[in-house]
Amino acid sequence: LSTEKAILPASLDDSVFMRACRREVVPYTPIWLMRQAGRYMKEYREVRARMSFLELCKTPSLAAEVTVTAAERLNVDAAIIFADILLIIEPMGLQLEFSKGEGPVIHNPVRSGADVDRLLEVEDVSALSFVFEAIRETRNALRPNLPLIGFAGAPFTLASYIVEGGASKNYVQTKSLMYNDSGAWHAMMSLIARGLVKYLNAQVDAGAQAVQLFDSWVGALSPDDYRAYVLPYTRMVIGGIRSGIPVIHFGTGTAALLELMREAGGDIIGLDWRVRLDEGWERIGRDVGVMGNLDPVALFANQDHLRAQAKLILDQAGGRPGHIFNLGHGILPETPVENVIKLVEMVHELSQTS
Amino acid sequence: LSTEKAILPASLDDSVFMRACRREVVPYTPIWLMRQAGRYMKEYREVRARMSFLELCKTPSLAAEVTVTAAERLNVDAAIIFADILLIIEPMGLQLEFSKGEGPVIHNPVRSGADVDRLLEVEDVSALSFVFEAIRETRNALRPNLPLIGFAGAPFTLASYIVEGGASKNYVQTKSLMYNDSGAWHAMMSLIARGLVKYLNAQVDAGAQAVQLFDSWVGALSPDDYRAYVLPYTRMVIGGIRSGIPVIHFGTGTAALLELMREAGGDIIGLDWRVRLDEGWERIGRDVGVMGNLDPVALFANQDHLRAQAKLILDQAGGRPGHIFNLGHGILPETPVENVIKLVEMVHELSQTS
Repeated sequence: LSTEKAILPASLDDSVFMRACRREVVPYTPIWLMRQAGRYMKEYREVRARMSFLELCKTPSLAAEVTVTAAERLNVDAAIIFADILLIIEPMGLQLEFSKGEGPVIHNPVRSGADVDRLLEVEDVSALSFVFEAIRETRNALRPNLPLIGFAGAPFTLASYIVEGGASKNYVQTKSLMYNDSGAWHAMMSLIARGLVKYLNAQVDAGAQAVQLFDSWVGALSPDDYRAYVLPYTRMVIGGIRSGIPVIHFGTGTAALLELMREAGGDIIGLDWRVRLDEGWERIGRDVGVMGNLDPVALFANQDHLRAQAKLILDQAGGRPGHIFNLGHGILPETPVENVIKLVEMVHELSQTS
Repeated sequence: LSTEKAILPASLDDSVFMRACRREVVPYTPIWLMRQAGRYMKEYREVRARMSFLELCKTPSLAAEVTVTAAERLNVDAAIIFADILLIIEPMGLQLEFSKGEGPVIHNPVRSGADVDRLLEVEDVSALSFVFEAIRETRNALRPNLPLIGFAGAPFTLASYIVEGGASKNYVQTKSLMYNDSGAWHAMMSLIARGLVKYLNAQVDAGAQAVQLFDSWVGALSPDDYRAYVLPYTRMVIGGIRSGIPVIHFGTGTAALLELMREAGGDIIGLDWRVRLDEGWERIGRDVGVMGNLDPVALFANQDHLRAQAKLILDQAGGRPGHIFNLGHGILPETPVENVIKLVEMVHELSQTS
C-alpha cells in the first residue's frame, strides 16, 4: 500500500497503532487480528507439525518466528506475541495440557475452598521466562516501528478454565463455586489478579508496547454477577499495569456488560460482532478507544461482501480517533488466508483520510 | 400455597398466565420453566429409559404424561407440550436423529442453493399429527385452568441446524450460505417460515393456549445480519399466528438484538440472564410483556442465594403487569429437582400482592 510507506513513522511510539491507542488522529485505521498467527496459515501449520501447541509456546525462537511471520505476511499494524491465555495458571500449581481437538485440559481443577487453598501464589514469574524471551526475540526481529502486544486471560476467563478443568458450555462448576462459597471464589480471583499483574508487567519489561486482557467467556455472566464477582479483580489487574502502557480489555458476548467492563478499566474496549460498533462505543463513552468488531465468519464470505462488511464497521467508527480494527474474536482455523490478507488491505484503503 | 387455591380462576382465559400474557394485573407472578419436563426429573428419566428422545416425542400418550407430570410436580402456572424445536424439519425432507450425548444430527444438511431447492414445502402438517395428538391428550389431562404452551424453533435457529447438520459453535456454514448465496438463504427461510405458521396454528387448533418461538441461537448474529437475514421471517411467522393467541418470542445472547426482536413481533419477549430484566424491558418497551430471566445455574446455588436471585428479578420487574417468570434458558440436566420446586414456591410467595 502506498499509504503505508509514506506515513508510518520511524519510532514505535509514533506508530499508527500506538497513536490510535492514545486516541490521536491517524492517517488510516490500524488493524490487527486476534489469532493472526494460527492454524489458518500454512507457515504456522508447518511449525506446529513438528511439536505440540504448548511446546511451541515454550520454544521462544519458534514462538517469535510465528509471531513475526504472521505480522509480516498480513501487513497488520501490530504483532501479538504467540502464547496462550492460560500459561499463567501453571505457576499456580495447575496441570495444563492441550489435548488434540479438545483444547485445554486442567488435570487438577479447583472445585472447593480446599482446592483454592492449595493454589500457589505467583511469587515471581520466572517460570514463565520463555514468554519473556519470546517477546525479546520478537521485538528484535520485528520492524522497529511495529508494536508488539502482550496478553493474558482475564481473571474470570482464567477462573472458568481452572474450575471447569477446560472449556465449558454452561459454567455450572464455576458459578456453583461463586454462589456457594463466595469466600473461596474471592480468594481465588484475588490470587489470579495478583499473578496477572506481575505477568503482564514482566511482558512489558521484556518489550511489549501494549497488553490485552482476554475475558473471552465473561459473556456467560449476568451483569449483576459480573459486578459482584468479577469487576473488582479485572480492575485490580488493569490498575496494576505500568503507567503509560495501553491496555485493551476484550470479551465476547458482552453486549450487556460494556458499561461495567469500561468501569473495570482499559484504554481500549474490545467488542465482538454481536453489538454494533457505533452503539457499543457510545455506551462505553467516547473517552476510551474501541477495538473490533468484524464477525470472524465474514472472512468466509466473497470479497464483495467482506468489503461491504468492513466498510460498515469503518462507517460506524466514523473516522473518530481511537478505533482499532479487529475481528470480534479470533480467526477461525478454516479461514481462507487470502481473505485475511485482503481484509487488511481493504481496511487500510477504505480508512485512508488523505 | 394458599394463594393459589384462593386466586386461580376456573377458566383458562382467566388464568394468571394468560392474564399476564395480556399484561393484566395479576395476584402473583406466574412462572413456568423452559425444559420443565426434562432429564433433571426422575419421573422423566424413567419414561426415557424405555425409549429414545424422538420416540418419546412421537408417542402422544407418553409425551402428554411427561408434560402433565412436570407441570403438576412443580406447581407451575403453565405447561409446555413435550416436543422438540426441530420436529418441523422432518416434513421438509430432512433426516433428523438424536444421537446419545451429541444432540440432534441432520444427516442431509443443506449446504448450497441446490440443497435448498430439494427442501420440501410443508403443504400440510399431518406428518406431525403426533404432536397435535399429544396436545389434545395433554389438554384433556391437565387441570382445566392450566394453560398449555405450544412451540417450535424460530426460523434462524432451525436454519442453523439444517445447514450445520447439528449444534454449532461458530455457524460457519450457516453464515457462509447467508453471505455467499443470499438468494438460497432467503428461499430457505421463507419456506421454513411458511411451514412454521401452519405447524404452530395446528398446535393452537389442537388445544394450545399460547405459543413460543425458540430462537435459541440467534445471539450468534450481528444486529445488522439479524435485520437483513432473519427479522422478516420471524415477523412472517409471528404475524401468521391466529389472532388472540399470545406469542412468546425467546432467544439467548440477545442483549444487542432486543429492539429488533421486538420489531419482529411477540406479545412477550423472552430474555436470557445476560441482560438485566429492567433494562431489557425498558428497551423492548413497556407495551409488550417480558419473560425471564434467572440464570439456570442459579438452581445449583444454596436456597438463600437462589431466593435472593429470584427476588432480584422480581424487584427489577417491579410488579408491573406483563412479567412471566422463567429461566433465561432451559433447566440443565444435573439440576437438583428440589431447588426447582422451591423456586416456584419462592416466586409465588415473593410476588404476592395481597
